[in-house]
Amino acid sequence: MNRIDVCLSPLLFHPQKNDSDSIVIIVDVLRATSAFVAAFERGAQRITPVSNLEDLRVYKLKGYLTAAERDGEKVDFADFGNSPVIFLKSDLKDVEIAYSTTNGTRAIEKARNSKKIVTAAFINLDAVCKWISTQQNDVIILCSGWKEEFSLEDTLCAGAIIEILEKYGTHDYISDASFAALKLWQSSKYILTTTVQEGSHYKRLQKLDLQEDLNYCFHLNSSDIVPLWDGIGFQKIKTY
Amino acid sequence: MNRIDVCLSPLLFHPQKNDSDSIVIIVDVLRATSAFVAAFERGAQRITPVSNLEDLRVYKLKGYLTAAERDGEKVDFADFGNSPVIFLKSDLKDVEIAYSTTNGTRAIEKARNSKKIVTAAFINLDAVCKWISTQQNDVIILCSGWKEEFSLEDTLCAGAIIEILEKYGTHDYISDASFAALKLWQSSKYILTTTVQEGSHYKRLQKLDLQEDLNYCFHLNSSDIVPLWDGIGFQKIKTY
Repeated sequence: MNRIDVCLSPLLFHPQKNDSDSIVIIVDVLRATSAFVAAFERGAQRITPVSNLEDLRVYKLKGYLTAAERDGEKVDFADFGNSPVIFLKSDLKDVEIAYSTTNGTRAIEKARNSKKIVTAAFINLDAVCKWISTQQNDVIILCSGWKEEFSLEDTLCAGAIIEILEKYGTHDYISDASFAALKLWQSSKYILTTTVQEGSHYKRLQKLDLQEDLNYCFHLNSSDIVPLWDGIGFQKIKTY
Repeated sequence: MNRIDVCLSPLLFHPQKNDSDSIVIIVDVLRATSAFVAAFERGAQRITPVSNLEDLRVYKLKGYLTAAERDGEKVDFADFGNSPVIFLKSDLKDVEIAYSTTNGTRAIEKARNSKKIVTAAFINLDAVCKWISTQQNDVIILCSGWKEEFSLEDTLCAGAIIEILEKYGTHDYISDASFAALKLWQSSKYILTTTVQEGSHYKRLQKLDLQEDLNYCFHLNSSDIVPLWDGIGFQKIKTY
């Protein structure tokens, strides 16, 4: 039986402690890992995470489409912000996107040396779990959080992943953090909408008038896409 | 209305970010902050936290009673380990104890520059909350965790503190971490014994045959003592 662990903040992720054979699942529900799926739904070929904006400018000069957000808002020079709904309205067939966000791309940076990395959100929950269940690896769910702080929606998503993988019977959770994430999810899943509304980043995005994005991000299993790390960026794999 | 925040691990505590007027509540249910209360119950005058064992030897030479634990077990040269039950069986009238543990004393070290520090555990939950409710300060609950990782029992205790302070009407919680700790507590409080048994440190202490300590640590509100920082160590204040 393989194991599942959870890091509730990137600060609690220690690459040297983790078995390099573990699959890392990056979660940034609001909004990077939801937006990745949306971009792939519209045909994007690859999404390359970029930590800082200086590097992102270089990617732009090289001809990449760029997506960048800081504190919930689109960065001026970028082609896109971090809105999944804007991606859904765009034709992204075969484009390469260079992507930089406040939290999600930093978490990816920390996991960079892991052998396998996928990204998960509520919208591709089942797809990710289905793929994980076919792999013979331990799993670390890395919650991106908000500026390295604990995030409610990422932890709930981690709890949901644990519940599904336990049902598949391929993985067992370990650690207090995994147990707590699972319990939090189980006590909230039938009131998910009212629960996530208590999250600080949900409120921040609501104030920025991004309700359409919020609705999209909490629509469970609307996609069957799994973004998988290829050593440079993420490419989609289909699970059904 | 004052605010309550929670740090789920000492790694998430950033002294520079915290308002220096905030009261820091250190929580290390298993077992340091439970054992502090037990030692005060038996008459101890002051408990001085010491981060490393070299310094603790110096305190021993100065005539202090010493208490020290690493990975759940008593350190050889110390007079006591970290067992509240052993303290309860000892006469500690007017003694000064120098104290070093795996997690609790490290968390205290991080909070050292805060103006007011108290320690809390399940056994003095109401007492701490009653005292806090008389103070006009924001509150940060600092969970000691296990080797800087998330700990189930410390987070549950943080959730219980939030629930009580909310009922007093003096403090409102902020942040996703506080909300999650409160929800975790509320979904577990009527099955507290079975819930805490899922914790990794509970299991570790059970293997070390310390069931009597465990029973003591989860006996809610058996003491009315609040350990308060005096600039050097903790001294007890009585709340009733």
